[in-house]
Amino acid sequence: MPLLKKVSEKNAKGKVKQTFDNIKKIRKINKIPNFWKTLANDPITLERTWKSLKQVMKEGSLDSLTKEMIYIAVSMTNSCEYCIRSHTLAARKKGMDDTMLKELIAVVAMANETNRLVESYQVEIDDYLK
Amino acid sequence: MPLLKKVSEKNAKGKVKQTFDNIKKIRKINKIPNFWKTLANDPITLERTWKSLKQVMKEGSLDSLTKEMIYIAVSMTNSCEYCIRSHTLAARKKGMDDTMLKELIAVVAMANETNRLVESYQVEIDDYLK
Amino acid sequence: MPLLKKVSEKNAKGKVKQTFDNIKKIRKINKIPNFWKTLANDPITLERTWKSLKQVMKEGSLDSLTKEMIYIAVSMTNSCEYCIRSHTLAARKKGMDDTMLKELIAVVAMANETNRLVESYQVEIDDYLK
Amino acid sequence: MPLLKKVSEKNAKGKVKQTFDNIKKIRKINKIPNFWKTLANDPITLERTWKSLKQVMKEGSLDSLTKEMIYIAVSMTNSCEYCIRSHTLAARKKGMDDTMLKELIAVVAMANETNRLVESYQVEIDDYLK
Amino acid sequence: MPLLKKVSEKNAKGKVKQTFDNIKKIRKINKIPNFWKTLANDPITLERTWKSLKQVMKEGSLDSLTKEMIYIAVSMTNSCEYCIRSHTLAARKKGMDDTMLKELIAVVAMANETNRLVESYQVEIDDYLK
Amino acid sequence: MPLLKKVSEKNAKGKVKQTFDNIKKIRKINKIPNFWKTLANDPITLERTWKSLKQVMKEGSLDSLTKEMIYIAVSMTNSCEYCIRSHTLAARKKGMDDTMLKELIAVVAMANETNRLVESYQVEIDDYLK
Repeated sequence: MPLLKKVSEKNAKGKVKQTFDNIKKIRKINKIPNFWKTLANDPITLERTWKSLKQVMKEGSLDSLTKEMIYIAVSMTNSCEYCIRSHTLAARKKGMDDTMLKELIAVVAMANETNRLVESYQVEIDDYLK
Repeated sequence: MPLLKKVSEKNAKGKVKQTFDNIKKIRKINKIPNFWKTLANDPITLERTWKSLKQVMKEGSLDSLTKEMIYIAVSMTNSCEYCIRSHTLAARKKGMDDTMLKELIAVVAMANETNRLVESYQVEIDDYLK
Repeated sequence: MPLLKKVSEKNAKGKVKQTFDNIKKIRKINKIPNFWKTLANDPITLERTWKSLKQVMKEGSLDSLTKEMIYIAVSMTNSCEYCIRSHTLAARKKGMDDTMLKELIAVVAMANETNRLVESYQVEIDDYLK
Repeated sequence: MPLLKKVSEKNAKGKVKQTFDNIKKIRKINKIPNFWKTLANDPITLERTWKSLKQVMKEGSLDSLTKEMIYIAVSMTNSCEYCIRSHTLAARKKGMDDTMLKELIAVVAMANETNRLVESYQVEIDDYLK
Repeated sequence: MPLLKKVSEKNAKGKVKQTFDNIKKIRKINKIPNFWKTLANDPITLERTWKSLKQVMKEGSLDSLTKEMIYIAVSMTNSCEYCIRSHTLAARKKGMDDTMLKELIAVVAMANETNRLVESYQVEIDDYLK
Repeated sequence: MPLLKKVSEKNAKGKVKQTFDNIKKIRKINKIPNFWKTLANDPITLERTWKSLKQVMKEGSLDSLTKEMIYIAVSMTNSCEYCIRSHTLAARKKGMDDTMLKELIAVVAMANETNRLVESYQVEIDDYLK
């Protein structure tokens, strides 16, 4: 059980209903995921988070699939199961296949290893990096 | 100061010298970065890490620039300054410009926020994600 | 299953029984939570942790509800489900309502985002902050 | 050096200038901190982050000092030096004295310890917490 | 469910079969754990990870039980349930008893507390530590 | 600069002086490290932390060198520079040589990598581990 009960689509009103409708339209889905239904307990945070996410994740200099994979890399490093699963699905819809997923995971794991090698040895920053 | 003194290129021998030479050749650089000079204190780890990194970061289904950006995303989430700086430089050499960097950072930051929203509310995993 | 079996109240003796009794008295509860029953495998750690927690979480310059909310903020950042759930309950008993919980979560999430913006850009510390 | 050069107040234009002006007005400061000057490289992120932060940190059911302390607790858990220093200053301006700061730190440290005890023993969630 | 289906021992071929056979031989087990069966989706990562792990975890200046306990300490700090459980079992096979496990956990928890005290107070590095 | 000024040995009184004296006696040092001088701003936390640390780190079923190395592994995973440096020094005094340190680091780094592989693939817990 989440800390606060999900808001069902049926009970959505005002800001919540508007946001739910926009999510369904932009994401081309017909059911609101649990993340947004839970966040709907706090309509202001719901609306702000959706608007921010739409802005940040949209096609830009980085295509939206690359952005999804960056998002997944962060979620894997933070061990957020829900985030890994939902954004893996989103990335698949945008063209990520199994091979790409496996390469993504290999990079995430290796980066976590070398990050620790750097911190453990307390490697000095090269002058040309400053 | 790092925990163990860097091994200079001049003092590199055997496995260390071979690895240093291979790094310079593959990376097209003429100076060995501090990371590898520090790691050279442990020649087996040096060789293994370099071989693993070469394998993991090479052009694949994901192009090597995308891999660099995934690597940076992990390093930013782990707050590893050396790793952020060195891989940002590497990504720039492969074509990442300022706009791409800014978009990358925005995604990393936003993912860290929504990861915490999920964990804080203890959002339930949707059935279709299981 | 926990790594080591819980110690039931019936089987508690000596230092463990004393600590269990004190927990029930101070916390005004009549059942020992799993955290303490599991920790009871190591009576010295049980006693030390309980004494430390009592000292740290008691009414001081910060009231004990504020301390609970700080505790929750840490647990959310570390994604510790048990800790989030148990201290949310404790905070509710001390007066935290749903609105306060939602505001707490919004701050935790936003702090995690801006922390990463700072680290990603490698923001320099202003002179007046040193 | 930050990854991207700070935008000076003198060079601020459009969205950046407006945001800088609003920060100075709301925060009652006459110099823009490095965080915002660095973020100004990405005017959209600058504006969004400032607006979000203003919304999240404002007086609500939780007073703004409590919110600052929650923010600091997250930053301490994430070891973000800049964030710790700047929000400690902000909290002091709102009334946090040395004793409160020391109590805050004691709670943060203790929560990090007990979070790990829970995860290390893999403590089971009590039925009444589900 | 894992993100990608496990590869059963029956379906293992080539590099995967060789690695599975080697794991069973070296570890003296007759069933392949889920970790390796899942990793087998990416035969190159499977082989590399197994070879690296064999090299890193083998008897050296540090005996292999000490290495297992260091491994567990990291996994507890990262809250990786699978890693905690599987390496606790491995350490038990190498001689770790309940008392050693409890002492290990107490150190891990305490280190997480004092790490945060250091970062929260922003303790200066003593000259003799530089 | 730390958040609060260090308490010099000269200015130590009461509980602080007693703790300082005990630290010097037990640790066989003649200068108080910055960690304790900073913590002395909060005499109760100073005393509690010192007593807890003495209890947790003392020779037990695990020898005190093994405990130091576990402590270092946690500090490396958390990237706490002060903690890495001070406990590396402590471990060296108890017999850790360069080879042991390098093996310790290799295990820490590898554990951080495989922890992320487990979380990224969402590996299922084997029945015999539950």
